[in-house]
Amino acid sequence: MSAELFEATKRWGRWGEDDDRGALNLLTPERVSKAAALVRYGVTVPCGRPLATAPAVDNPNPALHHMIQAGDFAASQKGFQWAGDFVGVAFHGNSVSHIDALSHVFVDGQMYNGAPATDVTSVGARRSSIEVADAGIVGRGVLLDIPRLRGVDWLEPGDAITTDELDATDVNAEQGDIVLVHTGRDRRREALGPWNTYAEGLAGLAPECARWLYDKDAAVLGSDGVSDVMPAADMEWPIPIHMCALVGMGIHLLDNLRLDLLADACAARGRWEFLFVVAPLQIGGGTGSPVNPIAIV
Amino acid sequence: MSAELFEATKRWGRWGEDDDRGALNLLTPERVSKAAALVRYGVTVPCGRPLATAPAVDNPNPALHHMIQAGDFAASQKGFQWAGDFVGVAFHGNSVSHIDALSHVFVDGQMYNGAPATDVTSVGARRSSIEVADAGIVGRGVLLDIPRLRGVDWLEPGDAITTDELDATDVNAEQGDIVLVHTGRDRRREALGPWNTYAEGLAGLAPECARWLYDKDAAVLGSDGVSDVMPAADMEWPIPIHMCALVGMGIHLLDNLRLDLLADACAARGRWEFLFVVAPLQIGGGTGSPVNPIAIV
Amino acid sequence: MSAELFEATKRWGRWGEDDDRGALNLLTPERVSKAAALVRYGVTVPCGRPLATAPAVDNPNPALHHMIQAGDFAASQKGFQWAGDFVGVAFHGNSVSHIDALSHVFVDGQMYNGAPATDVTSVGARRSSIEVADAGIVGRGVLLDIPRLRGVDWLEPGDAITTDELDATDVNAEQGDIVLVHTGRDRRREALGPWNTYAEGLAGLAPECARWLYDKDAAVLGSDGVSDVMPAADMEWPIPIHMCALVGMGIHLLDNLRLDLLADACAARGRWEFLFVVAPLQIGGGTGSPVNPIAIV
Amino acid sequence: MSAELFEATKRWGRWGEDDDRGALNLLTPERVSKAAALVRYGVTVPCGRPLATAPAVDNPNPALHHMIQAGDFAASQKGFQWAGDFVGVAFHGNSVSHIDALSHVFVDGQMYNGAPATDVTSVGARRSSIEVADAGIVGRGVLLDIPRLRGVDWLEPGDAITTDELDATDVNAEQGDIVLVHTGRDRRREALGPWNTYAEGLAGLAPECARWLYDKDAAVLGSDGVSDVMPAADMEWPIPIHMCALVGMGIHLLDNLRLDLLADACAARGRWEFLFVVAPLQIGGGTGSPVNPIAIV
Repeated sequence: MSAELFEATKRWGRWGEDDDRGALNLLTPERVSKAAALVRYGVTVPCGRPLATAPAVDNPNPALHHMIQAGDFAASQKGFQWAGDFVGVAFHGNSVSHIDALSHVFVDGQMYNGAPATDVTSVGARRSSIEVADAGIVGRGVLLDIPRLRGVDWLEPGDAITTDELDATDVNAEQGDIVLVHTGRDRRREALGPWNTYAEGLAGLAPECARWLYDKDAAVLGSDGVSDVMPAADMEWPIPIHMCALVGMGIHLLDNLRLDLLADACAARGRWEFLFVVAPLQIGGGTGSPVNPIAIV
Repeated sequence: MSAELFEATKRWGRWGEDDDRGALNLLTPERVSKAAALVRYGVTVPCGRPLATAPAVDNPNPALHHMIQAGDFAASQKGFQWAGDFVGVAFHGNSVSHIDALSHVFVDGQMYNGAPATDVTSVGARRSSIEVADAGIVGRGVLLDIPRLRGVDWLEPGDAITTDELDATDVNAEQGDIVLVHTGRDRRREALGPWNTYAEGLAGLAPECARWLYDKDAAVLGSDGVSDVMPAADMEWPIPIHMCALVGMGIHLLDNLRLDLLADACAARGRWEFLFVVAPLQIGGGTGSPVNPIAIV
Repeated sequence: MSAELFEATKRWGRWGEDDDRGALNLLTPERVSKAAALVRYGVTVPCGRPLATAPAVDNPNPALHHMIQAGDFAASQKGFQWAGDFVGVAFHGNSVSHIDALSHVFVDGQMYNGAPATDVTSVGARRSSIEVADAGIVGRGVLLDIPRLRGVDWLEPGDAITTDELDATDVNAEQGDIVLVHTGRDRRREALGPWNTYAEGLAGLAPECARWLYDKDAAVLGSDGVSDVMPAADMEWPIPIHMCALVGMGIHLLDNLRLDLLADACAARGRWEFLFVVAPLQIGGGTGSPVNPIAIV
Repeated sequence: MSAELFEATKRWGRWGEDDDRGALNLLTPERVSKAAALVRYGVTVPCGRPLATAPAVDNPNPALHHMIQAGDFAASQKGFQWAGDFVGVAFHGNSVSHIDALSHVFVDGQMYNGAPATDVTSVGARRSSIEVADAGIVGRGVLLDIPRLRGVDWLEPGDAITTDELDATDVNAEQGDIVLVHTGRDRRREALGPWNTYAEGLAGLAPECARWLYDKDAAVLGSDGVSDVMPAADMEWPIPIHMCALVGMGIHLLDNLRLDLLADACAARGRWEFLFVVAPLQIGGGTGSPVNPIAIV
């Protein structure tokens, strides 16, 4: 079924056969201007999680944060001194807030627009690297708050969100939106502690939501999980939303966002739309980037 | 003289004795809202440099970009495959676009607001870490285009920018602005190739510009160099702008930005103000972060 | 009690007040020559574990092994091509075979010979770094095979080895020996899978064995665990063998060795002594090094 | 000519078509035992260079040495404290003492024994990884001291060593030897400072020495340079010794050794043979390892 879904929502060639930007093409100056006009309160809300440097059951490959120089010279020293640090991270996975470039996933040996997987070599991606977002990703963000819709604090790992639910929240997604789906993951983690997200799963979109994305014509999709509900039923298509969105539709994904603060900010104002800014690092040949997206309400 | 300048512009306690945010306090919701209203064209301009992974005379500690998985499995393989990468960087220095937290520099063993240097230990900063900017830095950006003012393509390494020049460009800096100073560094690099910025220097602000920052009451200062003109005359105060801004005034700095694209974008529209967004990674105890700031004109 | 044990076995000043080498001073040319004469079969046995790059319950901070260039260029390319890799590791902990320098542990703010802990700054150790072993550690190795003594395949986590047992194995430790204690850890891991060594513990020496080390006058101590039995009864002295050996006696430690192959090699020949070679990387200011020690039987 | 030399010295299949160990097969127990018997003085000599963490003109990709915990906690703290570090290095290149696995270099898309370059993927080498040396490399080492032969302190960058010179030093290489060629590189660096070894070159073996290696039937080749004289005359075969040794003959290489201390130790005793031990880290799929080889004279 996943393969059928993939074919049904695939739109290679829509922006040209050589296109590497995919649905980012929807973020026209007109849409950016209209999104900026959404700012009403001037409050900025962080949508990234703290960089996960501590080993934990949900963080098997901790990010590195090393001080290369601290303040441990003689304190009486006169004049100038400095401190500095190194940060390193294999950002894909289920822990770190990051953006997936269209070169991150392959279906049957192909990435978005049919480019071969072998275009991603050990020195980076020749096609559809994250460099297409060097100028940032700016647009209208909408928060689909599923726990609020269901009247719960959070969804459980493995809970699948349906297309109907995506249509029933307090805000309607429109063409060119940056769609953010809240599952309450960070609330659950705070209340119950971390869990092994690979073994026990994450709440997320049911596979058929790929069609919803196609119909809505979203520019970007993000979630506090990894968008896909996990575990998957189909081993050959373990993350069908990733596969349909990144490969078939050219929709960049934002994984492991922190959306509880944004959910609170939206609920407090009764308004689930905002200016949304993602600023990936300019990683040549990168298949993504760690990010800390900012919503401005 | 540097020490006198430091004392003259120091304003510890202005936002409370325990304050770690410094001039970010100037970025009030009102200012953020007004900055968002500056967006007129809906064009986004990247102000970060490509992450410098290649060894070069101006990049003695290259950033790491490693593919932990590429597309080099059998291309005929069915179904799902992925690629991913690791990125690592000691971001301080003269190469990488980054933000300096207020804990990055010490004067006589103290950082901003008098916190001791020993509060920055080998496991991170206990005071004034970059976490104060977790929600992003958003405000009115202004570009002071010094090469344009002087009628040249770029300034030479060691060229000092004066207070008068800061007042004479096409835009007036106001209280709470994110002030960006263009020196033409990237144009020069493209035309003449890289140079050893530690030995040969960088164009930047003369030390006395610290007083201008104080009078203007800027929220943030950034440059395509490191704000300070280098080499410095005073070995004990090798980077007086850093020392006065970070330590004395609590002004965060943006180093090694790429501003040629923004200079072009501003000149083309005859307008040097814009919405400016910086989204540091949420690095616990970090003394800064690599960033890719975005201007929205 | 641990503090008393520490005082009873401390021997600061034995090789001079400024000495940083500790018991490595016992590895005289005479002892090295005699150790070389132990080689009888010409068989080399690895005593390091494979570098633990995979996340596992007993490997919370996996080592990094990244290919910076693989063989994924066009296979038809003529002439020269290369592949290469990056390896990175925070080697202390319970996973990676490594040597502890005398600067790795402090008791009441002091390391071996009374040097202050503050001599280990964010840029490395000024005293007793692993550089003292730049020329390698070569001597007579002896394997104390505790599972063999007890007639079991392995010891259980938390099992404490007694002084009597150290004296009862097939070989007698002598002054200046490199003493290796086998607990069967890798056999247990292979049979039962990995376990959380921090929570569940490791077999190792009871604290009072510190006195045995003192009496035997060992040059180096190593184990397939971390020498100390864990968990510890005394929270203030969580690893008393480390504290007494490294800090009090100046005995370098080898942690997380792989000793099952050596146990087999010794048992097959009825001989538990051999030439033993450790070759730490020359890490300036390092508090240790990952190592792959080699026994030559 | 290089291609002819390659064909003339190639010996694929000598130890079986599936062999990944190459000339390490020459290091039989008998040879190891005889090598151990060479130890006469019990003096150990380091043959690795200090890990090059400082940026320098001859070190474009510095190794990382980060303290993840230093001694900068309160010095008065009672009981146990620790310090630890992270070390990371892309060890191939012209700076770091390392061993090249047979999977490090390809000729016309093939590595040793005809295995395809594509067997080295982004997750490591499936054939001829450094794991073949997990048990260490132990044998008779011989030092060919070329500066001594020529009566100079060091060879100049680009100086080519001839086959005749290899035969004229104080020691005769024999079958199964670990052959070390001293060029005086570290002496020159100490006297004149570092130079750009990529642009200016290194002293090393003339290409035709590949035939000498073949005739002598060496087990391993090492040098204080990279064995090959550089710059190369043949751009398609930029490092013919690497290509013939690693790919054609299956001879592992030791690059960037430090041999001045060993040269002094040998000259002082009038004896240029010794027990030589290399202990690579057990890097699964690695194309080499940083090493600190030890000579025991």
